[in-house]
Amino acid sequence: MTKIYNFCAGPAMLPEAVMQQAQSEFCNWQGSGVSVMEVSHRSPEYVAMAKQAELDLRELMAIPDNYKVLFCHGGGRGQFAAVPFNLLGDKLDADYILTGQWSKSAVVEAKKHARIHETNIMRTTEDGKIGVKSSDDWNVNAGSAYVHYCPNETIEGIEIFDVPETGVVPLVADMSSTILSRPIDVSKFGVIYAGAQKNIGPSGLSIVIVRDDLIGHARQTIPSIFDYQVQTDFDSMYNTPPTYSWYLAGLVFKWLLAQGGIAAVEKNNIAKAELLYNAIDSSSFYSNNVDASVRSRMNIPFTLADDSLNETFLSESKAAGLVTLKGHKLVGGMRASIYNAMPIEGVQALVDFMAVFEKKYA
Amino acid sequence: MTKIYNFCAGPAMLPEAVMQQAQSEFCNWQGSGVSVMEVSHRSPEYVAMAKQAELDLRELMAIPDNYKVLFCHGGGRGQFAAVPFNLLGDKLDADYILTGQWSKSAVVEAKKHARIHETNIMRTTEDGKIGVKSSDDWNVNAGSAYVHYCPNETIEGIEIFDVPETGVVPLVADMSSTILSRPIDVSKFGVIYAGAQKNIGPSGLSIVIVRDDLIGHARQTIPSIFDYQVQTDFDSMYNTPPTYSWYLAGLVFKWLLAQGGIAAVEKNNIAKAELLYNAIDSSSFYSNNVDASVRSRMNIPFTLADDSLNETFLSESKAAGLVTLKGHKLVGGMRASIYNAMPIEGVQALVDFMAVFEKKYA
Repeated sequence: MTKIYNFCAGPAMLPEAVMQQAQSEFCNWQGSGVSVMEVSHRSPEYVAMAKQAELDLRELMAIPDNYKVLFCHGGGRGQFAAVPFNLLGDKLDADYILTGQWSKSAVVEAKKHARIHETNIMRTTEDGKIGVKSSDDWNVNAGSAYVHYCPNETIEGIEIFDVPETGVVPLVADMSSTILSRPIDVSKFGVIYAGAQKNIGPSGLSIVIVRDDLIGHARQTIPSIFDYQVQTDFDSMYNTPPTYSWYLAGLVFKWLLAQGGIAAVEKNNIAKAELLYNAIDSSSFYSNNVDASVRSRMNIPFTLADDSLNETFLSESKAAGLVTLKGHKLVGGMRASIYNAMPIEGVQALVDFMAVFEKKYA
Repeated sequence: MTKIYNFCAGPAMLPEAVMQQAQSEFCNWQGSGVSVMEVSHRSPEYVAMAKQAELDLRELMAIPDNYKVLFCHGGGRGQFAAVPFNLLGDKLDADYILTGQWSKSAVVEAKKHARIHETNIMRTTEDGKIGVKSSDDWNVNAGSAYVHYCPNETIEGIEIFDVPETGVVPLVADMSSTILSRPIDVSKFGVIYAGAQKNIGPSGLSIVIVRDDLIGHARQTIPSIFDYQVQTDFDSMYNTPPTYSWYLAGLVFKWLLAQGGIAAVEKNNIAKAELLYNAIDSSSFYSNNVDASVRSRMNIPFTLADDSLNETFLSESKAAGLVTLKGHKLVGGMRASIYNAMPIEGVQALVDFMAVFEKKYA
């Protein structure tokens, strides 16, 4: 059958080698005769695997020793709630930087708990593109418990590469769609969290990287499964964790290490993104409306010169094995999500298809 | 290799036929060329599968139309928090019935939000067994927002088969380890919830069955992913659900229907439990300390006459393909969890092994 390249924004494709290994040992993990999803999370074999996954993630991201790594239930939206519960303590204020839909959604949850100071840093550039103000223009309130932002907005296709300086106010980042795609200086953050279903593994898992001193100040009514102190005390096994997602995340981390780690992965991601942006920019048929300085390497929205061709583009690309290219309904057009697991051959296949399509219909 | 029978209390074994189907279509779901865990939860194919899973569960449990079925993140412990957040509303009181460790753990979470009236209904029978008081002796406060209990305690091996009468106060049940093992009259409950990792599917998913009129009264600070109103409005897709767990749950529901539904499954569960309890009761070497009226069909703890043989029992049973029989540390001895997926052949193999072991060491 036709080779399938899956451009879904999430749940996203996983590395082919990971999926093949997982399939081969699906009913017989480590020679146990049972599936990894059927073993106790407290068994020595599972605990060893889980711990190794954490160590591999620590190596990949060079996570300093004064940060805890938690494997949690609830996805990114769970952390939208967990962050204010954990970090506000006695404070009443928090800062949220707005760059798109996901950062706006985080605000909705935080407003249940705090006075939220919203700073919209989206702007229109001189040539009419979507841009973002420099982080020097962020007005962070010194009394805020934390500053929250989303460095990669999957819907708009915006990515902020510089880490803003927020002084003593802890910086919290929703890295769901950019984690592990490029090196990050973890020491600049108070909390980094990510839903798994883009660059980590299947949905149902979220990973939280939290600085020691921010743990232990949660508000009294926090659900225990969200409490960073509780999850730290129990090595993320206060409740039965999403064991299969954790296992697959571990396989993905091993795969990333085998690729040469995050520096090598970033190089590949830059090449993939350049390939697609160059194809878009060199055509008058396709366009992307994001300023070059903040274009996402992971999620690349583009429109066709003639919207009435959208359905034809989607059906013909699908027939060519290029699936889930429909843009988010808020933006329209197309979107190619090209996370770590997407090989450059997939992006090349898309670029080739786009050229043929343009020739046929432009 | 030796046939493995896995007696883990959870994450538990899944039906062999389900696991084989899942393995065969792991990388190519419905001929799509990609895994079900790699497709968008908003794709028509995934939504159709998810909806069918709900319909199959409704059929299996004969869930009335005035109940919503929600597929949530966070497992059973997530619902320990979600229940008070959703049901207390303006009320300050809730009743919790204590029968073991799990009902006690639920109280810890509820105390963050309400005055909890605890009623310990455990008792010692005349012959020194663990018993439970009749539900006529439950002192439910008429002003309570709800009454919570756990009809099957996995650690102690206690199961309450009669549904207590609580008048106008809604009855909430943590059915994690008994759901789908026997017919339940859903209409007697306000909320039924269950972590998936025993009789439903892999960990990471919880299922909530909630009566319409109890939705929409959540306290303001509830995390949105726990809000029954939000999850109802979004068909359990407010956030990306644990898509793979939902899919596997759907396969398990189809398998249960193919077994003849819950009445047939219960018949099998009764036969399995009788086989093991009879083996225990007819021996002076093995014993179970729970009164016959409240013995769990799902989790059967038993002790050896001589505790010093425990390690030998565990190593020899493991060598015979009977794994994860170690009892919970609070109870000691052994525990055989025999959920729906455990075939009677597995229980027979255990009973045969126990007889041989007794002959060898008694």
